[in-house]
Amino acid sequence: MIANLAERFARTRTFSERLCAPLATEDYVVQAMPDASPTSWHLAHTTWFFETFVLSRWERGYRPINADYQVLFNSYYNSVGEQFPRPRRGMLTRPTVAEVFGYRREVDERMSRLMQSLVGGEVHEAASVIELGIQHEQQHQELILTDVKYLFSCNPLRPVYREAKAGKQAACAKPDAWIAHDGGVVEIGYGGDGFCFDNERPRHRVYLEPFELNHRLVTNGEYLNFVKDRGYRRPELWLSLGWTTAREQQWSAPLYWIEQGEQWLQFTLDDVRPLDADEPVCHVSYFEADAFARWSGARLPTEFEWERAAEGVDIADRFAEGERLHPSACRHDCAEIAQLYGETWQWTSSPYTAYPGFETAGGALGEYNGKFMCNQYVLRGGSCATPPGHVRETYRNFFPPEARWQFTGIRLARDTKR
Amino acid sequence: MIANLAERFARTRTFSERLCAPLATEDYVVQAMPDASPTSWHLAHTTWFFETFVLSRWERGYRPINADYQVLFNSYYNSVGEQFPRPRRGMLTRPTVAEVFGYRREVDERMSRLMQSLVGGEVHEAASVIELGIQHEQQHQELILTDVKYLFSCNPLRPVYREAKAGKQAACAKPDAWIAHDGGVVEIGYGGDGFCFDNERPRHRVYLEPFELNHRLVTNGEYLNFVKDRGYRRPELWLSLGWTTAREQQWSAPLYWIEQGEQWLQFTLDDVRPLDADEPVCHVSYFEADAFARWSGARLPTEFEWERAAEGVDIADRFAEGERLHPSACRHDCAEIAQLYGETWQWTSSPYTAYPGFETAGGALGEYNGKFMCNQYVLRGGSCATPPGHVRETYRNFFPPEARWQFTGIRLARDTKR
Amino acid sequence: MIANLAERFARTRTFSERLCAPLATEDYVVQAMPDASPTSWHLAHTTWFFETFVLSRWERGYRPINADYQVLFNSYYNSVGEQFPRPRRGMLTRPTVAEVFGYRREVDERMSRLMQSLVGGEVHEAASVIELGIQHEQQHQELILTDVKYLFSCNPLRPVYREAKAGKQAACAKPDAWIAHDGGVVEIGYGGDGFCFDNERPRHRVYLEPFELNHRLVTNGEYLNFVKDRGYRRPELWLSLGWTTAREQQWSAPLYWIEQGEQWLQFTLDDVRPLDADEPVCHVSYFEADAFARWSGARLPTEFEWERAAEGVDIADRFAEGERLHPSACRHDCAEIAQLYGETWQWTSSPYTAYPGFETAGGALGEYNGKFMCNQYVLRGGSCATPPGHVRETYRNFFPPEARWQFTGIRLARDTKR
Amino acid sequence: MIANLAERFARTRTFSERLCAPLATEDYVVQAMPDASPTSWHLAHTTWFFETFVLSRWERGYRPINADYQVLFNSYYNSVGEQFPRPRRGMLTRPTVAEVFGYRREVDERMSRLMQSLVGGEVHEAASVIELGIQHEQQHQELILTDVKYLFSCNPLRPVYREAKAGKQAACAKPDAWIAHDGGVVEIGYGGDGFCFDNERPRHRVYLEPFELNHRLVTNGEYLNFVKDRGYRRPELWLSLGWTTAREQQWSAPLYWIEQGEQWLQFTLDDVRPLDADEPVCHVSYFEADAFARWSGARLPTEFEWERAAEGVDIADRFAEGERLHPSACRHDCAEIAQLYGETWQWTSSPYTAYPGFETAGGALGEYNGKFMCNQYVLRGGSCATPPGHVRETYRNFFPPEARWQFTGIRLARDTKR
Repeated sequence: MIANLAERFARTRTFSERLCAPLATEDYVVQAMPDASPTSWHLAHTTWFFETFVLSRWERGYRPINADYQVLFNSYYNSVGEQFPRPRRGMLTRPTVAEVFGYRREVDERMSRLMQSLVGGEVHEAASVIELGIQHEQQHQELILTDVKYLFSCNPLRPVYREAKAGKQAACAKPDAWIAHDGGVVEIGYGGDGFCFDNERPRHRVYLEPFELNHRLVTNGEYLNFVKDRGYRRPELWLSLGWTTAREQQWSAPLYWIEQGEQWLQFTLDDVRPLDADEPVCHVSYFEADAFARWSGARLPTEFEWERAAEGVDIADRFAEGERLHPSACRHDCAEIAQLYGETWQWTSSPYTAYPGFETAGGALGEYNGKFMCNQYVLRGGSCATPPGHVRETYRNFFPPEARWQFTGIRLARDTKR
Repeated sequence: MIANLAERFARTRTFSERLCAPLATEDYVVQAMPDASPTSWHLAHTTWFFETFVLSRWERGYRPINADYQVLFNSYYNSVGEQFPRPRRGMLTRPTVAEVFGYRREVDERMSRLMQSLVGGEVHEAASVIELGIQHEQQHQELILTDVKYLFSCNPLRPVYREAKAGKQAACAKPDAWIAHDGGVVEIGYGGDGFCFDNERPRHRVYLEPFELNHRLVTNGEYLNFVKDRGYRRPELWLSLGWTTAREQQWSAPLYWIEQGEQWLQFTLDDVRPLDADEPVCHVSYFEADAFARWSGARLPTEFEWERAAEGVDIADRFAEGERLHPSACRHDCAEIAQLYGETWQWTSSPYTAYPGFETAGGALGEYNGKFMCNQYVLRGGSCATPPGHVRETYRNFFPPEARWQFTGIRLARDTKR
Repeated sequence: MIANLAERFARTRTFSERLCAPLATEDYVVQAMPDASPTSWHLAHTTWFFETFVLSRWERGYRPINADYQVLFNSYYNSVGEQFPRPRRGMLTRPTVAEVFGYRREVDERMSRLMQSLVGGEVHEAASVIELGIQHEQQHQELILTDVKYLFSCNPLRPVYREAKAGKQAACAKPDAWIAHDGGVVEIGYGGDGFCFDNERPRHRVYLEPFELNHRLVTNGEYLNFVKDRGYRRPELWLSLGWTTAREQQWSAPLYWIEQGEQWLQFTLDDVRPLDADEPVCHVSYFEADAFARWSGARLPTEFEWERAAEGVDIADRFAEGERLHPSACRHDCAEIAQLYGETWQWTSSPYTAYPGFETAGGALGEYNGKFMCNQYVLRGGSCATPPGHVRETYRNFFPPEARWQFTGIRLARDTKR
Repeated sequence: MIANLAERFARTRTFSERLCAPLATEDYVVQAMPDASPTSWHLAHTTWFFETFVLSRWERGYRPINADYQVLFNSYYNSVGEQFPRPRRGMLTRPTVAEVFGYRREVDERMSRLMQSLVGGEVHEAASVIELGIQHEQQHQELILTDVKYLFSCNPLRPVYREAKAGKQAACAKPDAWIAHDGGVVEIGYGGDGFCFDNERPRHRVYLEPFELNHRLVTNGEYLNFVKDRGYRRPELWLSLGWTTAREQQWSAPLYWIEQGEQWLQFTLDDVRPLDADEPVCHVSYFEADAFARWSGARLPTEFEWERAAEGVDIADRFAEGERLHPSACRHDCAEIAQLYGETWQWTSSPYTAYPGFETAGGALGEYNGKFMCNQYVLRGGSCATPPGHVRETYRNFFPPEARWQFTGIRLARDTKR
């Protein structure tokens, strides 16, 4: 088990660094908004996680690598100690990027030695924390991409993260296919014996009314109709807080859409190019997703409906080098549900709350998920920027309703007519 | 039916004005914070409601009483037209208080005439809007009290709204009695044929795990132990957003608690007096309620658990003139659930969302509830400031998690041990 | 001397109250912006001034009238003690207006008795503080008017302070007459033995280059040309901070100008009426005055130029009941300088600084002027809202460059061509 | 003349880059506060200045090097066109530092060729703009140092810009020596025929009362006495706006002073080390300088007093490699005025205003100085970070009264006793 884990640890660590290959040193250090973090910080923080929760506990003769790092790279773990203020992460031009890579090297080597030396009862416990560290680093891999995308979008020079072949493919012709489900008492949450986050537990029963989910994601073309129909000007379509937010932040289209004369362009990690009507709409907030659904005469699914609909569906990872880091048009048969994973996260109408009987881990790791269960919404699925092997049907992502810089899109639901 | 309605209309309108009897003219016009409104505005807005939704529709030859009022006293109904900005309601020294009372008089008389003249098919429809207007005004009656309380608390002179006999009574001796429930598939929401708000509908099924509710509310004494145990200094007890909010706003006790040397005092509508350990704790935010529950080793109930527990329990209104506008200590037997109504609203762990199949009314009245279903929590019960006859077991009140100026308290729940 | 003072004391106190005659009780208590104060507060604060600086010192057996008032109505005298926060003055619905008038009554009576009983050495010292209190109350009389004007302007109902006969008169025909002065070493500051504020002292020498002052104030008509010439859109005309301020606050005309279709209206204390092209422009900030001057190819005068030009000119008070509280068109001969007093305060290009050898009074009264000598500009003259007898040619008024709610206008200056 | 200019151009350009030698790539791009700019931006902006004001005008066949740079690196010249928003300069990770150096290379070469090719009447005009560009770049050299210092101070790792030998020397023993001046009508402003900024002109007469200036700067030791005497807690010592600012920003000592137990440390570009009582106090705002002067029973000099006192005094540049970038203790005889240049800028009590007859240049360069003449104070002298050859006795530096991140210190003045 540990050998397998060590191999996955190494692969994950390497993957983070490969994601940085296209970056200039300058790109690593800037924090483009308080919600985002510098890439350099992501690289150091994920390393700090292993040093703090694994090395400091199981490495014999452990000494802190750098006492300052314990504060600088602690994100939000109050039980571990003080944290450098989140909105000031962009002040840290030191340690330099090279020093951060050096820090990674050292932790990687010590982790490698540790994993070989674990014995007896500590194996199991350490393995579970290392597994959590791997999953944690995968989450930050997606954040690196979304944060770099946001940073680049602030620059009028429109830097390109990585050029990719566009490779337009035929898109799903049928706009209006719905997959029906019966409802009733269903089981929700993770019940297996692999890894899952604490917020996916415990598996429990939920009563569902009959419902239908659209077979694919909402497209740019469909969303553009909403824009053209004055969707951003009609308060009756919006939640009250959404309407206020949209006006204050002067939203008139999804983030990264650019109106240029008669044409709409889209800023991506690959380029700036004309909006593709067949691709899934992306970088919308919960407020926009909700308003669009209302305008469509439909609604967003609950997270339970989504999970029920995803039961048993294969997760086809599509995150791969060479491919565009951008959602693709649907090219599946309409008879089955498509685009659950690998395109955009899907906003659900479910506020992020604890499952009945939810328990956090003891100690600092108990701060991982539970304390964020307020004023956020659950997103399900996984996006084109989610690392391979990271998600599952019970996976619960969550963001505040105004967040737009993640790869977030829309799947519609509706009540089954009786 | 209409005769009965007319009588209730008159009673409700009179009651609003009786609530204002203790106020000086000066007290009517000031807006002490953006969340609160001047009393004068409450009086005018509830009147505007009847003018806009009833008179303008069913009164023959209707002409607006004052075109400016349509904007000034529109709270948030975008479908009706523009609104005077909420945070500037305190700028309106005109119409004067006397003019607002004049406005009420005129609308009351025209409403009275209208109710007598309704015929045929319009009776039913008009009656349902008038009923809504009455319920709406009752909601503002409670807000008048909470907003005046907040205003008076800002004044170092500590004005008294109304003096009342304290009348201390024996309190419940037993701190730790829990009422158990089985769970399973239960029915939630209003299923009767009386009045209810749209957000209480439709009645639908929910699956509940077995649970227990404490038989009474958390007391000041119990909450004071949390304060003394450094509850406001221990981040591990708090939601992340709660911790940030508590530090930014420098919370160290419930709103209206005043530390004076060794002693704790409490500002009320009646007076400033020593904190009574037996009375229910009041004026806490969701964040504080949640942190207190965690510290207690318990949790807050869901709104469904609360509704199930309240099933069939009598609503003993205790809002009455002469009595203190302040929650009272529990004096009931511990075998049954107590203090569901008439003391403090009870925070539930349920974010305010739509029930499955929820439908809003058409037109402006559709803006009444649905558009606020975001970043708020449901409160159940009713408080010492809730007008008689206003609530029921399916009633859903809601406020953002940081709100403290309402009469909000805590009832604990826990999972049934298996 | 004291008899005369007592008579002026009484007259000043009465005048303050006469200014309030048109107000409804509601109008007294609201604070429409942090820079403004409620009328009720002005009435109480000027009374507090006499209680604090006169009664508490010279009245035998003095006891505070209300200990809370010492904090509530202290504006900014740190040496006296704590102050109720300025932006929260609008929270104080108590003491009621009637109670504030009662407070005035009591202080007036005790002051009256005190003035009769002063003997020996204390007469002179007390008289000088009472004189300061009178001058201080006169300053607040003008503030009452400007603050009420601002408050009423926030109300869409456009309340009228007092109706007045418009009485249009023939205006000065000649736009471009300049009065020349030689410059050289001149004496500046108050050198007499009557009352003056500490900031007018000591009289001292200043070297001036030859200069010219326009014989009258800039008119609405002239300013409108600046507006039409895109004056608010051309950054090259503005100070950098002025440009930023104008954009942030979305200025496109003077405060209280209202564009209505093709026409410009003006909100005044009397009414809303068409802009009169001949009247002096009013309610402009220093930034606007400065930009207008640059656009005109002229400049603002220094305060020393203004004082030199005003030497020996009669002060014709025009503040009187029945007349409009609004600046009037120039109707004087162009050969002499006109409109120095009684229309609008005139922005000078002089930052508000201490004269060489400036000394503040000891104790709390030393806080009267000196500590505000930063980021403010001197205004000279006096306005249509300045109480009779209050100003003189050495009088220095001062406001921050962004202030617009005072009766502030523009007089142009230019260098004498050599 | 042009040959000399070309040589000075080259030297200045090289000097900017030499200042950057100690920086890591990461240090170039971060903007630590809105008032500061990234080093990379400084390097590009000074280059943009030459491209925009020289090359675009006199280079034959000029084409913009990069159209985006025209916006990105325009600081505040509205006449040139749009500007990238100042507070977002830290978003620009591209162009990379290497690209910015490439941009400098290209402009340097083209400037070099241009200077050789200028002929006839254009020589003089171009030379004067080039001279301005050199002076401009020197100003940014000082800003690079102050901005890097601020950036490094935000980092708990306390990066070192450059280590330097401390070399403590004997300090002036005499604390209280004053140099007297007669006053009278004096000439102020630049009257020579070398370079000066427009704000130093025209030379004109000013009347001064007799005054005295302290022979040296206020030391850390003296300032520490102010701190220990509760200087930051006594409102009577402060300007009103200074008091508010100091409380809001929680000032309790100069910027970069660090209290550690009983000891005071100081963060510098060289290191963090114990506060040296003999060194001039540095990094104080105008507000602190003014409060300190009041506490001392003295005052700040006017800029005219300073200029008069500096008349004919040699400017001993002390900015040199190897030496500390930090002010040094006074080691001069007390009979003469010392430390006018090379240690700290000296706050004067003079608001930054136009001299009588001030004229700005036509076109964009007219925006250089004049439009900032509001809410700023004049500083005189020059600091340890001012490039050699940059200042003169008529030089007017200016900053808002709350600025602390420049090398700003205090020289006291007082009225001559008569």
